[in-house]
Amino acid sequence: MEAHTFLLQLLAILVSARILAEVATSLGAPGVIGELVAGILIGPSLFGWVETNDVILLLAEIGVILLLFEVGLETDLGKLLDAGRKAFIVAVGGFIGPLIAGFAVSYILFELPLIASLFIGGTLTATSIGITVRTLASVNRQNSIEGQITLGAAVLDDILGVVLLALLYEFSVTGEVNLMNAVKVLAYISVFFMLAPVLAKSMSQLIRRLDEHIANPGLIPVTIVSLVIFFAWLAHWFGAPELLGGFAAGVALSRRFFLPFGIAIRTSSEFSAKIESQMKPIVQLFTPIFFVTVGLSLDLRAIDWSSMFFWGLSLTLVVIAICAKFTGALFISEPFARRFVVGMAMVPRGEVGLVFAGLGIAAGVFSSDVYTALIMVITYTTLLSPFWIRLYYRYFGRFLG
Amino acid sequence: MEAHTFLLQLLAILVSARILAEVATSLGAPGVIGELVAGILIGPSLFGWVETNDVILLLAEIGVILLLFEVGLETDLGKLLDAGRKAFIVAVGGFIGPLIAGFAVSYILFELPLIASLFIGGTLTATSIGITVRTLASVNRQNSIEGQITLGAAVLDDILGVVLLALLYEFSVTGEVNLMNAVKVLAYISVFFMLAPVLAKSMSQLIRRLDEHIANPGLIPVTIVSLVIFFAWLAHWFGAPELLGGFAAGVALSRRFFLPFGIAIRTSSEFSAKIESQMKPIVQLFTPIFFVTVGLSLDLRAIDWSSMFFWGLSLTLVVIAICAKFTGALFISEPFARRFVVGMAMVPRGEVGLVFAGLGIAAGVFSSDVYTALIMVITYTTLLSPFWIRLYYRYFGRFLG
Repeated sequence: MEAHTFLLQLLAILVSARILAEVATSLGAPGVIGELVAGILIGPSLFGWVETNDVILLLAEIGVILLLFEVGLETDLGKLLDAGRKAFIVAVGGFIGPLIAGFAVSYILFELPLIASLFIGGTLTATSIGITVRTLASVNRQNSIEGQITLGAAVLDDILGVVLLALLYEFSVTGEVNLMNAVKVLAYISVFFMLAPVLAKSMSQLIRRLDEHIANPGLIPVTIVSLVIFFAWLAHWFGAPELLGGFAAGVALSRRFFLPFGIAIRTSSEFSAKIESQMKPIVQLFTPIFFVTVGLSLDLRAIDWSSMFFWGLSLTLVVIAICAKFTGALFISEPFARRFVVGMAMVPRGEVGLVFAGLGIAAGVFSSDVYTALIMVITYTTLLSPFWIRLYYRYFGRFLG
Repeated sequence: MEAHTFLLQLLAILVSARILAEVATSLGAPGVIGELVAGILIGPSLFGWVETNDVILLLAEIGVILLLFEVGLETDLGKLLDAGRKAFIVAVGGFIGPLIAGFAVSYILFELPLIASLFIGGTLTATSIGITVRTLASVNRQNSIEGQITLGAAVLDDILGVVLLALLYEFSVTGEVNLMNAVKVLAYISVFFMLAPVLAKSMSQLIRRLDEHIANPGLIPVTIVSLVIFFAWLAHWFGAPELLGGFAAGVALSRRFFLPFGIAIRTSSEFSAKIESQMKPIVQLFTPIFFVTVGLSLDLRAIDWSSMFFWGLSLTLVVIAICAKFTGALFISEPFARRFVVGMAMVPRGEVGLVFAGLGIAAGVFSSDVYTALIMVITYTTLLSPFWIRLYYRYFGRFLG
């Protein structure tokens, strides 16, 4: 690709994201909706100025990894672990609910093949951690109790999603389900989450010491981005989603990270502040590229708006995608207002749903009308959930302290 | 390309650049040499871990554009214009000298074809503005008199290089030289350089006003990077090298930029400081990618070290590449020590020479042995010039005030 063509595409992404985020904010919606709409506008759905390509997809991947790094940086691990049991219930319930309901409706009601129905159920399982987190941050609730529960649940959800994807993909190829493999993947991921923070913390201490002795400028941005990229790659190596590597690195570098067993590694808060202030512009530059790319990937022009099957399947699945996500959330011991908002926050599907649906059509598991119905479900849950959550806080926020 | 493969390549680039820059600095050489060597080490020349691909080349392009933006930001336009006449002499002399000498030696001594000899002369003309600037900065001389002369000359050199490249490329295809086209390109570029700073300044004022009223975070990194990218694209549209668009945007946003005719646009120094502090980490992250990529592009394994023709041609061209660059510098009215260091600073060829040589071999103008001889010349001037300049300052710096 010619450099100037790419520069123009990058320009379209950055500028449209910024303008539409401002418009969304001024209308009372979260900025992330504006960025998603920007992708739909400049992408194949409408104007067709920009199509996703290798370069943009990779920059978007870096964007979501860095976003999760920042989320980790602002996470209080103690609080997150406190929310652990509840987050687990929310994640497992909100995973099994949509999986079973999505599968049952597709298989029984719409009489789709077994494997297609399983992929549809799978597409409905995975919460978009990026959209959820950005929405909660836009109403300043990322550190609230429901924020911690949702964050923990979204992380677990992503792990369950990866395991399910591996299982389903294998099943679609070999026709067999190998549960041992799933257990092995889960074990690997657990090892990663136990080792990564300790390793990341030690490496950051090394960077801190280097920072005190080195005169060449630019140590922090280069080494911290390298650290984040390394853990993203390591997460992939252990079978976990790459963005969770960014999250693990962020948690380890946060001001509130303490190693277990009382092993004290002194955290210099001056160094933390330096990391935060130098990484913020980089994260803010890359993050919109990710959300615009999600919008770019939703080709609404491919949808046959006159097909009854499309409307029947997509509307049914939208209802299931929303209701079934509350399965776990409604059973935790919290005030109803909080249980409800946790359920709402788990609704957006975004990028992970797109991966499932994309793999389904690539493997020939289902036809393009099922695929477009799923795109519709993802579009709806992705675009409107942030809006509803914000509205909910405006009217019921006072019940949440 | 798979995301995790790319993440690993990016990691190799960032980490090797950092480590080797530190090693270079601790040995008394400029950090940029370390970054170039990093590219040679991890690239096809030695370990072959990383090869240039579309994504890396585009990130490198953004890196050099942002580097030139930062150079512009630190440039005092008044001083640069004061140095204008001398910079012009240095640029034109240092352009015509290597062109004629390189051509003559290839055509007469080595009896190469006319067009091949012209391309060889062309490859020897263009100074690598990035390497020159980084080297002067590493000895804190970027704002000295010789720094301003060299910067101005390197900018003019890049413009002359583009015009020559367009002429030669046309000549290699059609067999005719159209001087009118060259005049047109020069006229366009002049228009760009007259309009761009005024336009960039006005846009930055708009961003400043937005910054005072907008609550969403991340305005500065996204809008300033967009501005820089826009001017890089605009430069290309006017026929100038993209990196000079970044330079023009930087000059316009610098604290010391004043519009002609007494048109006063109030520059808020608080806003300038904000731009500098938020852009610095982004520039520092991208710049090493550019220098490593220059190293990656130098495939030293392709060289046939036993060929007499290779040694004869490359050593002759190295001598010409160095000596002829002093043609302009030695004729300006400055103390000899300063004239000499300006000449030295014009020697590194780097990326622009690679473009010339690459186009020459792609167009079938010369064979691979001529190409590798040129690679050798570029490697030598690129890698060793920064080292000589630094050494020169250590021993003769006191004559330069």
